Amino acid sequence: MTQTAATPAATLAVVRLKPKAEARAIRHGFPWVFIDEIVTDRRTKALKAGTLARLEDHDRRPLGLVAVNMASKIACRMLDRNPDAVIDVDWFKARVERALAHRARLYDAPFYRLIHAESDGLPGVVIDRFGDAAVIQPNAAWAEVHLDMLAEAVADVTGVSTIVKNATGRSRALEGLNEETLLLRGTLDGPIPVPMNGATYMADLLGGQKTGLFYDQRPNHAFAQRLCKDARVLDVFSHVGGFSLAALAGGAAHALAVDSSAPALELAKAGAEAMGQASRFDTRKGDAFAVMEDLAKEGALFDVVICDPPAFAPAKPALHAGLRAYERVARLAAPLVAEGGYLGLCSCSHAADLNAFRNSSARGIGRGGRRGMQIYSGGAGADHPLLPQLAQSGYLKALIFRLD
Amino acid sequence: MTQTAATPAATLAVVRLKPKAEARAIRHGFPWVFIDEIVTDRRTKALKAGTLARLEDHDRRPLGLVAVNMASKIACRMLDRNPDAVIDVDWFKARVERALAHRARLYDAPFYRLIHAESDGLPGVVIDRFGDAAVIQPNAAWAEVHLDMLAEAVADVTGVSTIVKNATGRSRALEGLNEETLLLRGTLDGPIPVPMNGATYMADLLGGQKTGLFYDQRPNHAFAQRLCKDARVLDVFSHVGGFSLAALAGGAAHALAVDSSAPALELAKAGAEAMGQASRFDTRKGDAFAVMEDLAKEGALFDVVICDPPAFAPAKPALHAGLRAYERVARLAAPLVAEGGYLGLCSCSHAADLNAFRNSSARGIGRGGRRGMQIYSGGAGADHPLLPQLAQSGYLKALIFRLD
Repeated sequence: MTQTAATPAATLAVVRLKPKAEARAIRHGFPWVFIDEIVTDRRTKALKAGTLARLEDHDRRPLGLVAVNMASKIACRMLDRNPDAVIDVDWFKARVERALAHRARLYDAPFYRLIHAESDGLPGVVIDRFGDAAVIQPNAAWAEVHLDMLAEAVADVTGVSTIVKNATGRSRALEGLNEETLLLRGTLDGPIPVPMNGATYMADLLGGQKTGLFYDQRPNHAFAQRLCKDARVLDVFSHVGGFSLAALAGGAAHALAVDSSAPALELAKAGAEAMGQASRFDTRKGDAFAVMEDLAKEGALFDVVICDPPAFAPAKPALHAGLRAYERVARLAAPLVAEGGYLGLCSCSHAADLNAFRNSSARGIGRGGRRGMQIYSGGAGADHPLLPQLAQSGYLKALIFRLD
Repeated sequence: MTQTAATPAATLAVVRLKPKAEARAIRHGFPWVFIDEIVTDRRTKALKAGTLARLEDHDRRPLGLVAVNMASKIACRMLDRNPDAVIDVDWFKARVERALAHRARLYDAPFYRLIHAESDGLPGVVIDRFGDAAVIQPNAAWAEVHLDMLAEAVADVTGVSTIVKNATGRSRALEGLNEETLLLRGTLDGPIPVPMNGATYMADLLGGQKTGLFYDQRPNHAFAQRLCKDARVLDVFSHVGGFSLAALAGGAAHALAVDSSAPALELAKAGAEAMGQASRFDTRKGDAFAVMEDLAKEGALFDVVICDPPAFAPAKPALHAGLRAYERVARLAAPLVAEGGYLGLCSCSHAADLNAFRNSSARGIGRGGRRGMQIYSGGAGADHPLLPQLAQSGYLKALIFRLD
């Protein structure tokens, strides 16, 4: 077992806030210090990405133990309010135990996001659990440095035998980290069947997008499922069948999944087969916008249509174009909904807040010639907790409308 | 059966928008015209509250059929986009059928909000259904005028035999309507047992607050319930036991309900008895703030604490005082939560938006000496639909935090 030696506090570097930097927010739980808030001298500039340091305010009062990355806009991430904390395997185990206790209370089966970064006390670290396997995304430099300790703590606390490192996220580039996906421990023998909301999803932990499955939509799948009894369902941007397989588990008469990724649709089909529902499930590969236009030309109508596109507005510069894209999704999807049917529209864009997204969606529904009422607004599940200080940025939004 | 004759369109009054009034929002589905947006002459001033009228833009293009109330800030409420619509029993039946179809799809048993005002096409009208009984709140003048037709439509479409008129809401005063609660049809023999989330609530349709039970918290009860297995639960501002009875149904070890209303606590007890859970249920009558201070002095600790206070900030003038009250609730409740336990905080204040409420809650938790992460954010259930044009005002907010 590789184990990096813990860094004794006495030898730690010190990072100091500028006179005008706001220490109050940090004292109240804000977990980040931006690069323009710290005193940068030759010594701090030389700190390697991922170095641990003591954070002090300008009057040299300690604020906590941070991980430093001078190459990132987020220069310091708070690891521990105790500036003398020792970052060793036991420290990681305590964090993982705290996170696990919460998930174990919520979920019958061990399939969930185990660590949701800052909120779970491990800044920049995302870990999804798939039964006996875990996928770690070390999206901050310090986590890359401490990856062996982290993997050991996860294995010890949860008992998983297989651990994958998935390092393909957009956020890694912001931290100056490269991309790679590899098996750290154990073995993997093809996609893992994942039970969720009565459906079975196939998660490809080595080849899939992100960590192979999006757990965040779980409560929204669960709600949408309740609308689907005996319904004809269209799942646009389906990925591995998120909404369509939930719909089948909810008693849908038929579900059609549309995605541009052939491997994702293959996994969706495998899920439907594992559920014994393959006869009620179809897929159509193609550009979602084009497929929706084709379906309209064919006169297709569905009782429930759900669109869960990729982030069209991941960051502010893309906001206007992103909102136009969301409006277009709504405009093309609305005419495919039967009278009295339901239209679900999702956004995982950080930059588009709920009201902006709702306005774009409502405008699109109107331009699609329909009126409706909003019956549901949901976010990410409880295995994606948020720091109250960062909660405004809750990225996932799912709106469901009933259309006349 | 009393039945008001339908008003022929030809004899209808006409209300016209001022030149600068924005007809576009109305064309896009906004359901209200404010008093300062219409041309007021001697004739319009003389219109009786609840009169039906044709709404026209300043160029005399028809916008729809509205109900007028010159005594209200909301002078016109859109009833039908068709200016020639005839408001008769069939018109009401179509609205009720549309609303019922949505609820019947969602709920196994006929206990829900049947009509949620503007969103269900009946402006200012709220109807809750309790199995074989319905409670109508005609909170706009036009609904008072057409109450017989409305009651007939509700009875015909749903088959309920008992109909209560409950006219005690704050909004009636804004419409210049008086308060009264009376039985319009059928009989009532004491409180009605209401099944929800596996719990049994006792709803007193003639004597209770609002319509005797708050259906809007259903999804939040359901989520909180999942945290309550074997837990010690405190339900502050419990009313008839909303969160505490849901907690017992979810397997709580014990639940304590706190409210200032003795009749509400009696109904809560009756609910616990009906569930066979009376031995795990206690109540404490008193001012919620004082009781929380007492519990802290007693050293009481709970695994789950939920506070669902009345609207502290129902309208903008009360916003600052209201937010301070929410902060105080959080500050007093947080110390009562055991380590790793959960704190639920609710607001039904229109004026306090989600971010303002979250900030007050987070500040209160901090001042109560605790830190935590937000694991849940919920609103009203799907039987409380919203017009997208009014959705920003979604009044109900439920936040749940896990505290270290």
